[in-house]
Amino acid sequence: MSRLIERLGRLPGLGKRSAERIAFHLLKASPEEAEQLAAAIRQLKARTRQCSTCFNLTEADPCPICADAGRDRSRILVVEQPADVATLEALGTYRGLYHVLMGRIAPLDNVGPGDLTIDALLQRVTRSRKTDQPIEEVIIGTNPTLEGDGTALYLVERLEATGVTISRLARGLAAGSTVETASKAALADALHGRHGMIRPDRAR
Amino acid sequence: MSRLIERLGRLPGLGKRSAERIAFHLLKASPEEAEQLAAAIRQLKARTRQCSTCFNLTEADPCPICADAGRDRSRILVVEQPADVATLEALGTYRGLYHVLMGRIAPLDNVGPGDLTIDALLQRVTRSRKTDQPIEEVIIGTNPTLEGDGTALYLVERLEATGVTISRLARGLAAGSTVETASKAALADALHGRHGMIRPDRAR
Repeated sequence: MSRLIERLGRLPGLGKRSAERIAFHLLKASPEEAEQLAAAIRQLKARTRQCSTCFNLTEADPCPICADAGRDRSRILVVEQPADVATLEALGTYRGLYHVLMGRIAPLDNVGPGDLTIDALLQRVTRSRKTDQPIEEVIIGTNPTLEGDGTALYLVERLEATGVTISRLARGLAAGSTVETASKAALADALHGRHGMIRPDRAR
Repeated sequence: MSRLIERLGRLPGLGKRSAERIAFHLLKASPEEAEQLAAAIRQLKARTRQCSTCFNLTEADPCPICADAGRDRSRILVVEQPADVATLEALGTYRGLYHVLMGRIAPLDNVGPGDLTIDALLQRVTRSRKTDQPIEEVIIGTNPTLEGDGTALYLVERLEATGVTISRLARGLAAGSTVETASKAALADALHGRHGMIRPDRAR
């Protein structure tokens, strides 16, 4: 029991109290329920691999997104980690493909470009542009942080020769936030990136 | 004593505990310190007025920003409230003038355009454009919220006839945040507002 509590307590977001609650729940649960949970955890590890195209975590290769013929194959959104794909898919408005870097360039953590899936991205873009289904746009979706910015600049340098359009997710004030409480960095972005406004009826 | 604690407790950010701590501090302080605090509060109310040009709170009219000959008089940043001016001045990169709306259009709170300083903004822009120091750009800095958006659209409609350039603070991912934890609204803004990237050495 104490071993399970200790193991559960290592999971992100689970404190000792929550771990105890789960352990007691499993103690009272039917043997089947406990066994199914254990099996699911084992299967997750046994079955999960990386998509050989986009490097997202998946049970099938290619992953369901890369395999989906209904998606816009001319656009790739480059993100740092699989969790970012999940967040963007929950939003539901993006219909293109992804590429998961599996990290960001972080010299202080000894993570260089070679530790990421950047070469594979280059090959993916370059190859596609010799076909009749070329990738037209690479949207850089690295985090708006120092390391995310550095990674974005490196990607631009590497991608430029392919002739693909390179864009980056906008930064500025977060929707629903206020000017008063915005960080200096967010305000500076918002001022620097300000965009022209026209009357909505003219925008049609 | 309990009356002061009760009064202090009404101030934003001061809970009962903090109010008690301040009250006990004043109890132990010299009579001079307490009197100076009381006088400063009284003077604040007696001396503070609104700038007749930008409507920011000020002790002098025009306010120090409107009176500063070193500032860029061709640009006005329109904000909802005086606290927004303080936040932007703390950032220190904006060198133009301001216009404080003293609120935002909020039908649910019964705040209409006539309750704000919008007419005065119109007059300010229109008049300046007949002089040799015209206002060239109005930057809308209302909050990235539903009511801030509505107010911005109303401002565009009213300002358009003056011929001034109208822009708005950028919105998207807040600097230093992550894609994984961004709200759906912020992510949607970031995708919608994505901008082209070129190699940094070509940007010069």
